[in-house]
Amino acid sequence: MHSNGKILIAQSGGPTAVINQTLAGIVLEARKFTQVSRVYGALRGVEGIVNEDFLDLTQETTHNLEQVALTPSSALLSTRIKPDTQYCHTIFEVLRAHDIRYFFYIGGNDSSDTARIVNEEAQVANYDLRVIHVPKTIDNDLMLNDHTPGFGSAARFVTQAFMGINLDVRSLNGVYIGVVMGRHAGFLTASSAIARKYEGDGPHLIYLPERVFSVDQFIRDVKEVYEKYGICIVAVSEGISDASGVPIITTMCRDIEKDDHGNVRLSGTCALGDMLAGQIKEKLNISRVRSDTFGYLQRSFFGCVSDIDQHEAREAGERAVQLAMWNDMDGSVTLKRTGNYSVDYILERFEDIAGQTRQMPDEFINQAGNDVTDAFKFYVRPLLGSGLPQPSWVRAPRVPRIINNRK
Amino acid sequence: MHSNGKILIAQSGGPTAVINQTLAGIVLEARKFTQVSRVYGALRGVEGIVNEDFLDLTQETTHNLEQVALTPSSALLSTRIKPDTQYCHTIFEVLRAHDIRYFFYIGGNDSSDTARIVNEEAQVANYDLRVIHVPKTIDNDLMLNDHTPGFGSAARFVTQAFMGINLDVRSLNGVYIGVVMGRHAGFLTASSAIARKYEGDGPHLIYLPERVFSVDQFIRDVKEVYEKYGICIVAVSEGISDASGVPIITTMCRDIEKDDHGNVRLSGTCALGDMLAGQIKEKLNISRVRSDTFGYLQRSFFGCVSDIDQHEAREAGERAVQLAMWNDMDGSVTLKRTGNYSVDYILERFEDIAGQTRQMPDEFINQAGNDVTDAFKFYVRPLLGSGLPQPSWVRAPRVPRIINNRK
Repeated sequence: MHSNGKILIAQSGGPTAVINQTLAGIVLEARKFTQVSRVYGALRGVEGIVNEDFLDLTQETTHNLEQVALTPSSALLSTRIKPDTQYCHTIFEVLRAHDIRYFFYIGGNDSSDTARIVNEEAQVANYDLRVIHVPKTIDNDLMLNDHTPGFGSAARFVTQAFMGINLDVRSLNGVYIGVVMGRHAGFLTASSAIARKYEGDGPHLIYLPERVFSVDQFIRDVKEVYEKYGICIVAVSEGISDASGVPIITTMCRDIEKDDHGNVRLSGTCALGDMLAGQIKEKLNISRVRSDTFGYLQRSFFGCVSDIDQHEAREAGERAVQLAMWNDMDGSVTLKRTGNYSVDYILERFEDIAGQTRQMPDEFINQAGNDVTDAFKFYVRPLLGSGLPQPSWVRAPRVPRIINNRK
Repeated sequence: MHSNGKILIAQSGGPTAVINQTLAGIVLEARKFTQVSRVYGALRGVEGIVNEDFLDLTQETTHNLEQVALTPSSALLSTRIKPDTQYCHTIFEVLRAHDIRYFFYIGGNDSSDTARIVNEEAQVANYDLRVIHVPKTIDNDLMLNDHTPGFGSAARFVTQAFMGINLDVRSLNGVYIGVVMGRHAGFLTASSAIARKYEGDGPHLIYLPERVFSVDQFIRDVKEVYEKYGICIVAVSEGISDASGVPIITTMCRDIEKDDHGNVRLSGTCALGDMLAGQIKEKLNISRVRSDTFGYLQRSFFGCVSDIDQHEAREAGERAVQLAMWNDMDGSVTLKRTGNYSVDYILERFEDIAGQTRQMPDEFINQAGNDVTDAFKFYVRPLLGSGLPQPSWVRAPRVPRIINNRK
C-alpha cells in the first residue's frame, strides 16, 4: 500500500463524450481510500498545475459527479500545451508543494509523455509519487490499446450521421462527401461503414489517411459508383495525403494554421469537402454534389453516446486508482480485448505509448484503398454500443402503369 | 361519406426526421375505411405521379410501416420539381386513369400550391376528388401553422449541438460560429438559445434572416462578448442578408448554384462560416476561431428526434385522412396551439398557405437583432420534446495556492 497524501487529476487535449466518466471513476474510487487526504482537479490540464488552479473534488457531491459524468467535454477544461522538460519540472515542483502523491493524467499520447517526465523527476528527487496516464481520444490512435475511451461514441455519431445521409441522398439523389476527423488514423472515418444496411447503401467509398489519396482515382471511383447506383456517398478523413505525404487540404488552402505541436489545423474549415465536391461537379458534370465537414459536432454533440464507451471510460478511471493504490504501479492504462466482446485494463510503460501514433492495420483496409474490410466492421461494431437505430425501407409491390404503358 | 376509390400519397421537398410518421399515419388510418380499395404511394413526389411510379401500400405490413415511421427522410423518396399548371394537369390525368379519389401531399408551401391546382382541375372536370396537403418542413415557415412537423426534431438537433459546442469551446476557449439552415425564417437558428443553461453559456449571439446583417456590427458584438467571457459562440442562419436583401453568402462565393425554384443554394458549402471566422481573426486578432456548417446533419441525423414532433407528425397524417373521409373536405392541415402544451389540427384553404413564407414575429427577436426573447424560448421549448439532455459542471471549491502566492 502506498503512502498517505493527495491525489491530482487533470484532463488534456480535445474533448470526448465520455472523458468525464473517467474523471468520475477516478474521484469516486479515490475517495474510498483512507490514506487519500484530498482529491484535487487541475483546471486546464498542465496549465492549471503550473498556475495552481486546483478544485477540491473531495468536496464535490457524488450526485453531481454522476451528472458531470454524463456531460461531454472536459469538466476540468483542457489545454493544447505540450510541456517541455522545464515545464514538467515546474509541474513536479507544484505537486511536491501540495504534497500530491498520486497524479492521474487523462489524455492522448502527448499526455503519456508528460506523465513519463514528471515520474522521472520524482524518482531523481526521491519523492514518492505514483503517476498514471489514463487514455482518451476520439482518434483511437494510442499504441498498445485495442481502442481508446471516447472513440466509440464519436464513431457512433459518424455512423448515425451516415445512416441519415444515406436516406437523405437517396431521397434527392446526387453525390455527397462527408469529411470526418482523423489526422493520421482513419478509424473514425472507417466507422461510417456500419451505416450500410441495404444493398446500395453508402458510404460507397471510404478514404483513409493510411492510404495515398489520388484525386484522379477518386473521380474514377465516384464515376463508377454513380453509374451503378445513381448516387454516391463518400466518407473521407480530413487527414488524407498525397504520395509525398502532403495533406490534400494544404494543396488548396490559402492560410494554413498550426498549433503548438506543429500540426496543421484540419478541422473548422471546409476547404477539403468543397474542393472535392468542385472536382466532381467539374469532371463528371453531376449537378447535385454536396459536402459537409462534420467538424466539432462529431466530438461534442450532446446526446450521442455509446454505453460500452461510457462503461469503459468509467472503469478505466476506477482501475487507474486501484492500480496505483493496491499495486503501487506507474504507467499508462490500456484497453485490451479479451473476448467478443470483453476488455481488460493493463498498465503499460509510458514510453511505449508516448509520441507514437497507431494507425489502422492493413487487414482493416481493402485492396483498392477505398473501403474497409469485414474484419474492421467486426472489430468496431461492439464499440458503438447498444440500441443503434436501424433504418427501414417500404417494401410494397409496384403498381402496373396505365397511361405510360399505352404510349 | 365520400365515394369509393383509391388513395394516393406523395412526399416532396427536403427530408425531415418525422415525415414518415405522417406517411404511416395516413396509410394506417386509410386502410381502416372499407370504401378505400387501395392505398398507393408515388415515388419521388410529383415525378412519381407523372411517371406512374406507384407502390401499393395496401400490401405493406403494419409492422414494417411502424419501422419506416421511425426512419428519417422520405420513404417514398422526394423531388425538388415545382409543377406548373401543365404539369398539374398531367398529374390530374394520371389520378383519373388510376381512379384515385383521395390525394394526400406531404410537403411545404409549394406542395400546397400543387394540391390547389390539382383540386381545381378536378372540379373543372367534374371528377370527384379529395385533395389534402399535410405540412412538413424543418424551416417552420408555413403560414397559419403554430409550427410544422419536422421542425421540432431539427430544432432539437440544433439545441443539442450547441449544448455540446458550449462545453467544447469552454474547454479550449476561442470563438465559434455555427451556421444553421434557414433561408427566410430564423426559427431553427433561434432554437439554439435553448442550449443555454449556466451563466456565460452560448450561443451568445444569434443572427436571423429576419434582421439585416452587418458585418461591422457582428464584429463589435463578438468583441464585446469575448471581452466579457473569454469565449464567444455564435449561431447564424445561412440566409442572413445585408440591407439591400442580398444574402451575405453571395457576397463572397465564387459559383452560385440555383435550384428549380430559383433559390440560391445556401447549404452544402461552408463559405459563410469561413468568411465570418476570417473576419473575426483579422479584425479582432483572436487566434482560435472555429466555424462549422451544420449542413445535412441537422435534418438527417438518425437518432435525434422530438417525441412531440413524432406524435404530431403521425396525428397530422391520421387527421388528414379523417377530414377527407368523414368531413369530405379539401385543404391544408395546419397545427394550432390550443394550450401549453397541446395542439389541434385544422383544415385551411390551400391559397392561404401556398407560395408564402412565415417569418419569426417581432416579439421573438430582441431589440438589437442579435438574440431571441424569452417569448420565443417559451414558444419553442415544448416542440423539442421530452428527455432533452442537461449539462452539469463541477462545483467544487478552489484550493488556495501555495507557490504562486509566495511570489
